[in-house]
Amino acid sequence: MIIVNTGNWKGKTTAAIGQIIRSLGRGWKVCLIQLFKGKEFYGEQKVLKSLKNLKFYSYAPKHPGCFRNISRRSLKRECTKALKRLEASLAPKNKYNLIVLDEFNIAVRDGFLDIKALLEVLKGIDSDLNVLITGRSACSELMKIADIVTEMKEVKHHFNNGILAKKGIEF
Amino acid sequence: MIIVNTGNWKGKTTAAIGQIIRSLGRGWKVCLIQLFKGKEFYGEQKVLKSLKNLKFYSYAPKHPGCFRNISRRSLKRECTKALKRLEASLAPKNKYNLIVLDEFNIAVRDGFLDIKALLEVLKGIDSDLNVLITGRSACSELMKIADIVTEMKEVKHHFNNGILAKKGIEF
Repeated sequence: MIIVNTGNWKGKTTAAIGQIIRSLGRGWKVCLIQLFKGKEFYGEQKVLKSLKNLKFYSYAPKHPGCFRNISRRSLKRECTKALKRLEASLAPKNKYNLIVLDEFNIAVRDGFLDIKALLEVLKGIDSDLNVLITGRSACSELMKIADIVTEMKEVKHHFNNGILAKKGIEF
Repeated sequence: MIIVNTGNWKGKTTAAIGQIIRSLGRGWKVCLIQLFKGKEFYGEQKVLKSLKNLKFYSYAPKHPGCFRNISRRSLKRECTKALKRLEASLAPKNKYNLIVLDEFNIAVRDGFLDIKALLEVLKGIDSDLNVLITGRSACSELMKIADIVTEMKEVKHHFNNGILAKKGIEF
């Protein structure tokens, strides 16, 4: 099953983390492949790393939207590594019950990951496996093959009042 | 700060669980007060109970929408207990950094919890404390005082194809 969390609002990765916790509680084996977030910047990473039955991989730690002087070539290389990691996570069958591809939508949107290559890998997944893909701007090709798509929609936010992202809440 | 996760779609509680994990990773103390979900039905509950710095309380284990013969009087009593628990969680100051009121919107919508009583308690919260309230049909009075409101919006779902809620994913 393919699940997509998208929308230009907070809650996409946060809901993915919640999904990981729920799945681990069912005794599932989970793999988290995360892009653009490093290994220690986000509050949840420390807790996730301590959990049994969860494998955590991080690629392309910095996104050029937040950091200067990040070469597109190195980003493409890192995103290709992440895709290879996804492929490696599919065998043997039942290695994982849930694979989370955090911010992969961004990698596709920004041209660091080829959507065709991603779709090709996703085409081969076992029907028992759940793959959750997050990031704003999910592309139509991905939405088309997804079983569940949720949009996190802005209603009201303190950012609009000039308040900055808050540690412990937004990151 | 008051945060509301609403909308008629999946991801509200899931994002709240993710928020708890993120906050715990920052060394925050967290209190989860959950309605209508029992203590063991949801996959995440087992993992949450094992985490340090998280207090988990459950009231009104069954919602009449899912179970028969639940008296409204007992539900009101349980929801009042949950509100008392919230009040007790506010003192001393800094007892918690994050309090999650899971499905409180439903309790208000269905008349088991008086919105005025809830707003009265929320009025007294310290500016450092974060309170996250989940459930569809968040009422306008609550949205008005909230700092962040996110709507989880349906785009596509396998329920629509007649597939039932899946263990490990939806619960």
